[in-house]
Formats: sequence, structure tokens, C-alpha cells
Amino acid sequence: MIVLHPSIIITMDKDRRILDNYYLGIDGDKIVYIGKEKPGEYEELIELPGRMIIPGLIDSHTHVAMTLLRGLKDDADLMEWLQKYILPMEMRLKPEDVYYGALYGIAEMLRSGITTFLDMYYHEIEIAKAVEKAGVRAVLSYGSADVFFNRSPEEEFKIAENFRANLEKLAKEKGAEDRLFFAYGPHSPYGCTKELLEIFRDESRRRNIRIHIHLAETQGEFDDIKKKTGYTPITYLNEIGLLSDRVMAAHVVWVAENEFAILREKGVNVLHNPISNLKLASGVCPVPRMLKEGINVALATDGPASNNRLDMFREMHVAAIIHKGVTRDPKTVPAKTVVEMATINAARALGLEHLVGSIEIGKKADLVVINLKHGPHGTPVHDPYSMIVYALDQSYVESVMVNGRWLYYNREYSTIRFDELRETIQEIRDRLMQEAGIS
Amino acid sequence: MIVLHPSIIITMDKDRRILDNYYLGIDGDKIVYIGKEKPGEYEELIELPGRMIIPGLIDSHTHVAMTLLRGLKDDADLMEWLQKYILPMEMRLKPEDVYYGALYGIAEMLRSGITTFLDMYYHEIEIAKAVEKAGVRAVLSYGSADVFFNRSPEEEFKIAENFRANLEKLAKEKGAEDRLFFAYGPHSPYGCTKELLEIFRDESRRRNIRIHIHLAETQGEFDDIKKKTGYTPITYLNEIGLLSDRVMAAHVVWVAENEFAILREKGVNVLHNPISNLKLASGVCPVPRMLKEGINVALATDGPASNNRLDMFREMHVAAIIHKGVTRDPKTVPAKTVVEMATINAARALGLEHLVGSIEIGKKADLVVINLKHGPHGTPVHDPYSMIVYALDQSYVESVMVNGRWLYYNREYSTIRFDELRETIQEIRDRLMQEAGIS
Repeated sequence: MIVLHPSIIITMDKDRRILDNYYLGIDGDKIVYIGKEKPGEYEELIELPGRMIIPGLIDSHTHVAMTLLRGLKDDADLMEWLQKYILPMEMRLKPEDVYYGALYGIAEMLRSGITTFLDMYYHEIEIAKAVEKAGVRAVLSYGSADVFFNRSPEEEFKIAENFRANLEKLAKEKGAEDRLFFAYGPHSPYGCTKELLEIFRDESRRRNIRIHIHLAETQGEFDDIKKKTGYTPITYLNEIGLLSDRVMAAHVVWVAENEFAILREKGVNVLHNPISNLKLASGVCPVPRMLKEGINVALATDGPASNNRLDMFREMHVAAIIHKGVTRDPKTVPAKTVVEMATINAARALGLEHLVGSIEIGKKADLVVINLKHGPHGTPVHDPYSMIVYALDQSYVESVMVNGRWLYYNREYSTIRFDELRETIQEIRDRLMQEAGIS
Repeated sequence: MIVLHPSIIITMDKDRRILDNYYLGIDGDKIVYIGKEKPGEYEELIELPGRMIIPGLIDSHTHVAMTLLRGLKDDADLMEWLQKYILPMEMRLKPEDVYYGALYGIAEMLRSGITTFLDMYYHEIEIAKAVEKAGVRAVLSYGSADVFFNRSPEEEFKIAENFRANLEKLAKEKGAEDRLFFAYGPHSPYGCTKELLEIFRDESRRRNIRIHIHLAETQGEFDDIKKKTGYTPITYLNEIGLLSDRVMAAHVVWVAENEFAILREKGVNVLHNPISNLKLASGVCPVPRMLKEGINVALATDGPASNNRLDMFREMHVAAIIHKGVTRDPKTVPAKTVVEMATINAARALGLEHLVGSIEIGKKADLVVINLKHGPHGTPVHDPYSMIVYALDQSYVESVMVNGRWLYYNREYSTIRFDELRETIQEIRDRLMQEAGIS
């Protein structure tokens, strides 16, 4: 057992206990001790004065390999951005590009305390390899979109199933079955035919597999789906019978009045991406209303091309302020709720609440050590939730443990050669720009 | 002359030139050379590969000493927050508390590249002392509010004049006349009587002194001023004759349709505080419309009790995304415009455009060195404005020069003993909490 002794532990357990000056014992990959007394026996004791330990943060919706496309024509019209810049680059991505892009994104995530994420992309097995290599935890989905790729629903589903088989094989080979998880990834109501959505509906039920989908992100989608199907997006998926508590729906900005009840009754998990929704001018997700309805809301960064960071501290900050400003209620979405959205709510959304999302005996040791004295923002000391959300930033993250292993310790990576990787990323970007004829 | 040789210089000059691989020469407190060629003679050459130099950032509205009150009851109702928490603490502030609070705030500012700020508070001469000691630049105003303090307009004006005399004396004694500037600080349309506002109007005109005021921050103010005076706040000040291009108006969230023309015609400078306005649920300043009208908009943090940081990187980020989300236009308030708001527009707002706000020969050497390789967010390299606004954060600031002097060099302060100061701040906070009976 190794024992950590920080000044504060934010548990995010059922009682949301905040523990001052407690000892935290880790054996193998698990938390085995939380107590006021120093355990009698241990292998190593790490004194962490002035440090706060929080549960590993969970980024509940991203496209992690898009670090390669960061900053590619910001401040542009969405369709111009997608069609003239993003897609021409993505078409040219080789599998190994995606691997390196993902590994770089994971390095960025670790620095801001993200230990688990939910992803959707192409060449997704490469992202699985990066997750395995780096030592983090992820739920991975291949972005199925028979409409975009002009394939039959059956063909498109086969690709997803093929990824599932490969992922399961990789996880087994590497003994990483507690770090690599699968979800179906029908891209969106507009990226998939009704037939494909129905296949996912049936297979999700039959095999108890989660579904990761973009839903009701823009007004354009809202209007188009209504025109095509007669239903607004959430209602459309509900009519198909796709919605359940296995569904992890990203964005959910455009919600008709009667659709809050659908989300609540079906137990849909909402993945809230405030920075991306603002930057891409999609709008503001009605989070205060969702919370009032008892809908589970988790926080997410979206991909680094539309953010442009994989940083849950920035995301928590924006989530805490945007809804106050828009609803004109300074008490809505308080700091504690925001930390819940980035930890325990996200664990629940991803179906991993039994493993992660809080610091409790028996759960996986996914921990973030924050040095409150790294800079000026941790002083004066006050409410710790408020400090995390409004005052601190990712630079205060000193060490990160996943599955009982230090992946980032005293600001050094243990599984990633960062400087080398950075050069690789720039080289890939330069090559893609040249091939796509973008200057 | 010392010569800096970074990879990129963001000049913010009239042509907004971005210079790759140029040399920047500084003699005394001034920029004396900008060129492709290495100067023939120099005292010191500092090679800065992988670094970007930007003009010192300007925080155009704050209450810097309120670091002492950071995180004091966040997520609360505004009036409860002010009356039960902020005011009981402020009442107990001793002059030296304000000095230390300001010095700490300046330390925080330097770390995020802020070299100049506009302040309003009480015991303002203490803030002047902290500015002088730290070596930064500031425009300082005493917060005049005869309504709040139940004093006569004449008495209240005398306090402001007294501060002016003391500030001028201090500046002269210390040879800091190019770093310490004065402005009148009528608190707000509701904190001042009409008589006091008229005194400031006359004296501002007569002596050519700038006016720093909170204006149209909340809907409550908008409605109250209308009820009391028959005019909405901007129109009310215009009727008094207070508005001119000497006016630096903070917030300006609640603007009636006809008032955009008033702001434009009078040349009023708007100080935009997006984070504070969202966090305190005041609303969203109509910046896209103001920019369209040609109104000068500068960026600001507001005080650290309502932010909770003195960090222009976070402020730039929120300024860039909020207006896109609210207006649903992804092209509005682009990154370059945001950097203008934090540099040259702010210099113009503060009446210091001849000294600071851009990197040009003859201007003061107020510079920020950003290390693009400090972390993952500077790769891949792309549009530098976009990188500053969306991808980087304060932790990328490596060194800061003000008036030709390194105040923060390779992450070490030269004029501030930071660790000692941090302890002092916590002690003052603890004492204030105890005295005010706040737990």
C-alpha cells in the first residue's frame, strides 16, 4: 500500500465529504484506505502539504486526436470551416497520425487532470492503442455515419462491430479491460439513416452496450430534422425508440419544451460542451432547467479543433459562469454542481460509476494532486469547490494517478515522451496542410 | 541597449504587423530598435527561440486589492454577497491591508502578462505605493460615492483631490511619473449625487483629467436610475454633460437602442468585463454592436472578488466565445479583435496610447515573453492571435518587462517577495474574517 497525505481530499462521494488532513491508501489499482489515522503498515508515505486531491476528471465527450487540427481557421463560418479546412485534412489522416494525435491529446488531458474520456472518431483503434500506451481510461466509439460515407446501414454497422472486436482483443491482450471500454457511436440524427439508428437501438438493447451520439447541437439540425422527419431531434430519436439511460448525448442545446420530460423519463445522459457551443455559435445548453428536471448532466470539452483545449478547468469555469449570465441568476449552476458534472455525473453518464468519479474505498485510484501554492490563485484559501472552478487552472495540477499508477508525477510524464511527440505532431500538421493545399 | 530575439513579435502597431525572427532593441525604458538585422552594438543579446513577444497586457478595470476577498461566498445573490460579506470585510480594511492586497494582485497580474491597469478603490494611495514598489504602470482613481458614505459632494470631491495631490507627490518623489497616473473615480450613477457628478464634469474638463466610472452594469441600475431621474443611465450622464472621450466606463451592459449613438458621438471608452458580468449574472455587454458602431472597447477583469482572477488570458478567452454564442455568429469578435481589446484599445481607453499598448519604436518597453513550448497548447503552431486567445493560458508567460525592466524573468519576480507576501495575505484574510464574524 502507498499512502498519500494531502491537506484536503475532495471525495465527491455520496455525502460529498471534504476531508481535512486525511490519509489515503492505495493498493494496486484501488483505493483501500481513507482515514484520519496513519495506517500501521505501508510501503511508501507521500506527504503532500498544501495539496488538494480530487477525483480524476472525466471529459465526457471529445475527439481527442483532433489536436492535429487545433487552431485550423478559427472564427469562421461553421460550414466553411468544416468543408474547406477540417474535412480536407481529416481525409488525409493516416492511422498512425490518429495514434499520435490521440497520444498528444492524452498528454494534454493529463496535465489538466483528466483521467477518463469518452471519444468518437475514425481509425478509433489507434486511439485505443494510445489510451493503452498512456495508461489512461476511455470509452471509445467509432463515429458511424452511413449518410456521410454513402454506405449501407449494414456495412456501416459492420465497421463499428469490427472496431468492437479489435478493441476487445487489444484490451484482453494488454490486460487493459478495466481501462478500455466500448460504446456504439452513431454520429448524429443527420449523419445516420433511420435504418442504422434502428440497428443501434436493437443491438444496444440486446448486448447492453452504451450509445454515444451528437444530439440537437445546432438550430440548423433542429430545423432540418424537423423538416425531414416531422419531429425535432430528441423526439425523433425517441420515436425510433433509441433513447434510454444507455444513451450519452453530446451538446443537447436545442430542446423543445416537451423534450425535457423525454430526456428525464428515458434517463438520457447529457454531455455539456459549453466552450465549443459558444465558440461555434451553436448556443447555450439549458443546463439549469435540465438540473431542475433531474437530468444527469456531465461536462465535456468537445474536440480540440472546436475548443481549442482539452482542459476541464477552463470548461468548469465557463460552465459555472455562462448559465448565470444567460439566466441572470447568480446562484444557478454553483461551483459544487460544476465539479459534480466533471466527476461523478460524468462517471454515471459513461456507465463507470462503480469504478471512478469519486474517491471511495474500492474504487479505482484515479486521482489528481493539486498544488494550491503553485501560484497566486490558491490564496486566500476559501471554499474548495469555488477555488477549483473560479480561481485555479490546469497549471496547478502537479501529479495525476490512473489505476494506481502515476502517469504524471511532479509535472513529469511516465508513459509519454512529450518533447519528441510534440515534434511529431507539428510534422504531421505540416504534412497535412501541404497535402490539403491549405496555407 | 539590450536586444531580444524571439521567434515571433506581435506588434499591435497600426498595421498590426506580425514579425517573424526580428530583433527588438531596448534602451533604458524605451523600445529603440525593431529590425530583421542584428544591431551592430548592444550590451546584451537574449536569444528567445520558440518564444512570442506581445505588448504588455492592459487590464482596463479592476479593484486590485480585492485579492484579499477572493472566493468570499461565491454563487450568492448580489445584494446578500455585498452586504453580508464584502462590505463587512471592506469596513475593516486597514491601509496596509490594501497595500498588501494590491501588491499580491500585481504579482498575480504580472504572471499573466498584465503590465498596466486601471483601478478604483479606497485607501488608493496604498495601491499607488504597491504599483510604485512592484514597478508596474497604473491609472488610479479613488472611488468617490457621496451617496454611499453620506458625505456632501464637496467633502467627497475633496477626498479625491487629496488623493490626487498625494499621488502626484509620490510619483514625483519616486521618479515614477511615467508609471503612476490619476483619474477621477465617481463610483457610478447611483453612488454619486448629481451635484458630485457635475463637479467631476467641470473639473475633468478644466484640468483635462480622465473619469473612471461604473456604468449601466445591471438591470437594477438601469431601472432605478430611470425611476429616479427619468433617464436610463447612459442618457442620464449625457444629460449632465459628463460624457466625453475622457470617460472610461466599466461594464455598459444595459444600453438602450438610442444610447449606442451617444457612446459613439461622445467617444466614451467602454471597459468590458465579460467574466464578472456573467458570474454576477449582470448580463452580456453588447460588444459586437459597439464594435460595429466604432466605439472603443477595452478588456478588463474587474476585481478578483467577482472574477476570481486577474488573468487577461482567461478574460480574452471568454470575450472571444461569449459573443459568438449569444449572437449565434461564429465570426463576431474574432481573436485579433480580442487581442486589440487587451492591448491597443485599452491603451487608448486609458489615455496612454502614446506610451503603451503596442510594440513600436519610441514606446515604453512593456513586453510579455510567451514560451510556446512551455506546454502542449502551443502546438501545432497556427494563427498567433487565435493561439493567444483560444489555446494558451497564463502559465505560458515566462517573462515580463515594464518600462525596460524585467519584473518577472524566467518565472521569478525581481521586485516582489512572493512566498512571504502570500502568507501575509492569508493572515490578513483570516483576521478580517474573524473581525467580521464570517466563518
